[in-house]
Amino acid sequence: MPADVRHPLSHASASDPEAPAQWILTLTCQDHPGIVHDMTGAIVALGGNIETSQQFHSPDSGRFFMRLRISSSRSHAAVTAAFAPLISRHRLSFTIDRADRPARTLILVSRAAHCLQDLLFRQSTGQIPIDVVQVLGNHPDLRELSAFYSVPFDWTPVSGPEQKAAFEERLLQVIEQQHIELVVLARYMQVLSPEFCDRLSGHLINIHHSFLPGFKGANPYLQAHRRGVKLIGATAHFVTPDLDEGPIIEQNVVRVDHSKTPDQLRSIGQDVEARTLRQAVTWFAEHRILQDQGRTIIFQ
Amino acid sequence: MPADVRHPLSHASASDPEAPAQWILTLTCQDHPGIVHDMTGAIVALGGNIETSQQFHSPDSGRFFMRLRISSSRSHAAVTAAFAPLISRHRLSFTIDRADRPARTLILVSRAAHCLQDLLFRQSTGQIPIDVVQVLGNHPDLRELSAFYSVPFDWTPVSGPEQKAAFEERLLQVIEQQHIELVVLARYMQVLSPEFCDRLSGHLINIHHSFLPGFKGANPYLQAHRRGVKLIGATAHFVTPDLDEGPIIEQNVVRVDHSKTPDQLRSIGQDVEARTLRQAVTWFAEHRILQDQGRTIIFQ
Amino acid sequence: MPADVRHPLSHASASDPEAPAQWILTLTCQDHPGIVHDMTGAIVALGGNIETSQQFHSPDSGRFFMRLRISSSRSHAAVTAAFAPLISRHRLSFTIDRADRPARTLILVSRAAHCLQDLLFRQSTGQIPIDVVQVLGNHPDLRELSAFYSVPFDWTPVSGPEQKAAFEERLLQVIEQQHIELVVLARYMQVLSPEFCDRLSGHLINIHHSFLPGFKGANPYLQAHRRGVKLIGATAHFVTPDLDEGPIIEQNVVRVDHSKTPDQLRSIGQDVEARTLRQAVTWFAEHRILQDQGRTIIFQ
Amino acid sequence: MPADVRHPLSHASASDPEAPAQWILTLTCQDHPGIVHDMTGAIVALGGNIETSQQFHSPDSGRFFMRLRISSSRSHAAVTAAFAPLISRHRLSFTIDRADRPARTLILVSRAAHCLQDLLFRQSTGQIPIDVVQVLGNHPDLRELSAFYSVPFDWTPVSGPEQKAAFEERLLQVIEQQHIELVVLARYMQVLSPEFCDRLSGHLINIHHSFLPGFKGANPYLQAHRRGVKLIGATAHFVTPDLDEGPIIEQNVVRVDHSKTPDQLRSIGQDVEARTLRQAVTWFAEHRILQDQGRTIIFQ
Repeated sequence: MPADVRHPLSHASASDPEAPAQWILTLTCQDHPGIVHDMTGAIVALGGNIETSQQFHSPDSGRFFMRLRISSSRSHAAVTAAFAPLISRHRLSFTIDRADRPARTLILVSRAAHCLQDLLFRQSTGQIPIDVVQVLGNHPDLRELSAFYSVPFDWTPVSGPEQKAAFEERLLQVIEQQHIELVVLARYMQVLSPEFCDRLSGHLINIHHSFLPGFKGANPYLQAHRRGVKLIGATAHFVTPDLDEGPIIEQNVVRVDHSKTPDQLRSIGQDVEARTLRQAVTWFAEHRILQDQGRTIIFQ
Repeated sequence: MPADVRHPLSHASASDPEAPAQWILTLTCQDHPGIVHDMTGAIVALGGNIETSQQFHSPDSGRFFMRLRISSSRSHAAVTAAFAPLISRHRLSFTIDRADRPARTLILVSRAAHCLQDLLFRQSTGQIPIDVVQVLGNHPDLRELSAFYSVPFDWTPVSGPEQKAAFEERLLQVIEQQHIELVVLARYMQVLSPEFCDRLSGHLINIHHSFLPGFKGANPYLQAHRRGVKLIGATAHFVTPDLDEGPIIEQNVVRVDHSKTPDQLRSIGQDVEARTLRQAVTWFAEHRILQDQGRTIIFQ
Repeated sequence: MPADVRHPLSHASASDPEAPAQWILTLTCQDHPGIVHDMTGAIVALGGNIETSQQFHSPDSGRFFMRLRISSSRSHAAVTAAFAPLISRHRLSFTIDRADRPARTLILVSRAAHCLQDLLFRQSTGQIPIDVVQVLGNHPDLRELSAFYSVPFDWTPVSGPEQKAAFEERLLQVIEQQHIELVVLARYMQVLSPEFCDRLSGHLINIHHSFLPGFKGANPYLQAHRRGVKLIGATAHFVTPDLDEGPIIEQNVVRVDHSKTPDQLRSIGQDVEARTLRQAVTWFAEHRILQDQGRTIIFQ
Repeated sequence: MPADVRHPLSHASASDPEAPAQWILTLTCQDHPGIVHDMTGAIVALGGNIETSQQFHSPDSGRFFMRLRISSSRSHAAVTAAFAPLISRHRLSFTIDRADRPARTLILVSRAAHCLQDLLFRQSTGQIPIDVVQVLGNHPDLRELSAFYSVPFDWTPVSGPEQKAAFEERLLQVIEQQHIELVVLARYMQVLSPEFCDRLSGHLINIHHSFLPGFKGANPYLQAHRRGVKLIGATAHFVTPDLDEGPIIEQNVVRVDHSKTPDQLRSIGQDVEARTLRQAVTWFAEHRILQDQGRTIIFQ
C-alpha cells in the first residue's frame, strides 16, 4: 500500500504523540441566530480549543457556511457525538475529519505528464495532504512516472462507447473498494458520462485552459495566438454534467506577448494548469471548499 | 463640513431606512476557551445576526483575534451595553463602530500629488469609507487639487527644528479638535518626532517604496536601476519611532526590465505606492487591521 | 488651447535645446532580406544614432515589423527625405514622428469617471504623452472633472438613431478640424456605427471588462458573482465593426473571492479598467502598437 | 551519455532536415554608428534571414547590446567566417551558436529536491534547452531523483576547508572535461570560494529567497513571519565573490498573509524559487542574458 512506503524524497515530520488531536469541521445550513453559539458551546463542553474558524453568510442564498479547526484530547467517538444533537437541531450539512488524514485520491490521466508529476512530487514531499491510491489512464505513457513515486498505475484503451462504459464501471468499483474521496482529472482527455459526473458530484475536479475571451472548438492555443491574447490561464473546477461549466475553484493567468508561438503558449499554459490544479486539490483535501448554489466558498 | 457637501462625482447609494443597523466589532485577548461562545451568546440575546466573522489564534503570542460584522435593530446604547460584561470577563481589547461611519482622516502631504489624488478621487466616488477632514502640507502645491474635492487645505514651511515642533503641535490640536482617527502620510517627506509617532501609534500610516534587495541612502530608484532589479514595489505600514520599520500592512510589486530609466522606475513606483496606500487606508477604515506583537493581522 | 496651459500639477522637465532631436520610426512590410540593412544605412547617412530598435518577423503572415528610436541633428525635412526611397523599394507601411510630440486625443465618455480621471491626471503629470484636445459625452456628469484639468468638455444626448448619426457626424468634424489621432472610449456606453468604426480603424481604442469564462448579456458582474469567478479583468482593444472583438492591446486581471458582492466586483473592475486603458493609450501614443492580421504587435 | 538516452517522458519534435539552420548571435560593444548596418550586411551576404532581433543602447555605459536569431543554409564555418571581420572592426564581444544546441549544464545540490526536480522534469519534456551532464552534491539524498531522469549523480561530504578545496578542484575538472557551459546552484548550501566564483563569472547561477525588507542572519522565513510580510519571493542571480550580490537575472514574489506559519512560508518560497531559477536557466541557455556594468540586459 502506498501509505506504508516511505518515499526517498519525503521528510517525515514526527508529530508529538502527547499533543491533542486536530479536527476539521465544516457545516452549512440556512442562516439563523444561534448556530455559532451552539457550536462553540459544544466545543467548550469537549474541553476543546478553536485553532481557526472561518464563516460566511451568503446574501444570495441566505445560507451560512463555517469551517473550524479545533483541538481536543477526546476520542473520535466522543468528538463526533458532541455535535450530533446540533446536526438535527440546525439541519446542518456537517463533516468532521482528522486534520492529519490525507484524502484518498484517484488520478485519471491520458498522455500529458505535467499535472500528474506536479501532484505526485508534492505528495512525496508532504506539500499536499493527499494519498494517491491509484493512477488510471487511457494510455500507457505515464506508467514509469507513477512507478517512480510508488503509485499503482493501470491503463485501458477508451475509444468507443462500450469501452467507455466499461472504464467508468471499473472506476466506480475502484472508488468503492478503495474508499476514494477525490477523483482528479489531471488532463484526462475523455468526456465522462453525465451519470458518472452526477454520481461523483462534488468529488470530481478537472483542470482546463482558459482565456480572455473564451474560444470554442479545437486547438484553443492556436486561436488564442491568432487573436493576440495577452493573458493565458487555467481554471480548476468541479465537474458537472455541463462540460467545463461546473463551480470554479481556482483560476490563474500568465502574461504572454505576440512573439509566443502556439507551442510556446501551450507550454506556458501547462505550467499554469499544474499550479492551479495543485491548489484546488490542496484546498479540497483540507476541507476548504464548500458550495453555495453552484459557486464555491473557499476558506483559505 | 466636507461630510455635508455632495461632490459632483459621487453616486449616493440610498440605504434602506427600515434595515437594521450594521456594526463592526473587533476584539483581542489572551486565548482561552469560551470567548466565541460568550460573544455569540450576547449577539443572540440582542436579536442580532452575524453577517461576517473572522478569527485568528496566534501561535506566536497565544492571543486571539476576532472581527465581526453584525446587524441589530437595537439602539447604539443597547448594542454597546450588551458586550460590556464580556470585556472585563475576558479582558478584551474591544472596539465597536457603525459599519457605515467613515473614518475621520487627516492627510499630510509635501509636493507629490499621486497618493493624495488617488485617495480624494476614491473618497468622492464612495470607494473608500473615509471622511478627509483636512489636508496639511509643508508646501502649497496641492491646494488646488484639494479644493477640487472640497477638502480644506493648509500648509506651513517645516524646515528647522522649531518649525517642526510647531507643526506637530498644530497637528495634535487639529487631531483633537476634529476627532481625527487616522493620519495618512501621503508622501509627506518630513521625519516626524518619535514622541509624535508614539502618541499616534496605530493611527498613523505611511507609504514608502521598497525593493528586492533593499537600498540605503538617497535616490533609491537610481540604485535599483544600477542593480538591475526586476521588481519594484511599495510597502504601507504603521509608523513607529523606528523609521520605515513599523508593522507592515500591505505590499505590492510591479515588474520592470533593463530598459527602464530611473525616472520611469519612479513613475511606475508612484502608481504602486498610490494603490498600496489606498488599500491600507481602506482596511484601516473598515476595522480590518489588528496587531499582534508588531505584526498585523488583516481580516480581508 | 490645452497645450499652452501649464496645469498646476505639471512638473515640466526642461529639455536640452542643444541635444539632437529624437524620432520614432515604425515600418511594416512583407519580409525579405535587406530591409534592416537599408534602414540602418539611411540612418548612418543621416549622421543619426539608433537609441532603441525592436523588430519582429511574423511566422503567420510572413510580414516584418520594426520600431526604431533614433536621434539626429538634421531638419524634419532631411530626416523624412532620407527614408523616402526605401518606402517604395521595400513597399513599406511607414510612420515617422518626433518622439516628444504628444498624440492629439479625443475622449468619449458617458457618466463613469474612473477612466477619464485616470487619463487626465496622468496627462497633467506628464506620465502619458497625449494632448487631450476635447472630451465629448452623452451625459453632462463629467464637466467639472474636465474643467479642473483645463480640458474642453461638451455633451449632447444620444438616444435615437438620428441623434446618434448627428453625434457621429460631429465627431468626424472635430476629428478633422482638430487633427485628432486617437479616439478613446473611456467607458462610453453607446454603440458606434460600423461605418464610423471602419473609418477610424486603428485609431479607436475601447476598454471593457472581461472574465473567465466570458458572459453574454446584461450585468456581467452579477453573472461573474453567481458563477463564483476568482479573477476579474479588463481588455483594451482596437474597435472594429465586430463589437468587443477587435485586436487586443492589453489585458489585466485582479484576484477576487466569494465574499465580494456584485457592487464590489464592479468597483475592483473599474480600477483594472482604468489601469489597462491607460497602458493601451500610452503604447499608442508612443507608436508601440503595430497590427498583423488582426493581432497586435506591441514593442514594449 | 544523457544526450543519447531518450527519456520516457520526452516527446521528440522531428525537425525538418531541409530547413536552413537557425543561429543565435549576441554582441556587445561601445556604441557608435554603423554596427547594425554592418551586421545586417553580413547577413544579407550570407543569404541569411533575420528571424528575431533585439538591441539596447545603455545610457549608463554608452554600450550597445544585440541578440539576433538568423537562419542560413550555409555551413558552420561559412556562417562564423562571415562575422569575423566585424568583430575586430567594431571591437565586438561576440557569440554565435546553433539555436537547437542545448547548454551543457552541471547542477550542484545539497538535500532540497524542489529546484532539481523542476529542472530535470522540464529538461525531460523539452521545455528547457539544457543538457544536464552531471548532478553533484554534498549529500546523497537526490541520487534516486537524478537516476529517474537518467542523469549521473555523485556526492562527497564538504565539511571543512580541505574537503571544500578538493570539491572545487573536482568541479573544475568536470567542467573542463565535460565542456560545461553553465553551473547551477540548485539550493546548494555551501559557500564557494571567491576564486571559484571569479573563474566561473557569468556561468554560475544561484537562487535565493528574498523579501521586502531583506533580513540578515539565520532563518529568514521566521524573521519574515515575525515582521508580518505580505510578499515573499526569490531572486536568481549570477554569483560573484560578493555573496548574494551578483547581477540579478529574475525575481518573483507570491502573496502571503498573517495565517502562514514559518514552515508554510518556506514551502511557498520553494515553489517560487523553483519557478524563478527555471526561468533564469532558460534565458541563459537561449543566450538571452548580456551584462552591462553589473546589471543584466534580458532579451526576452
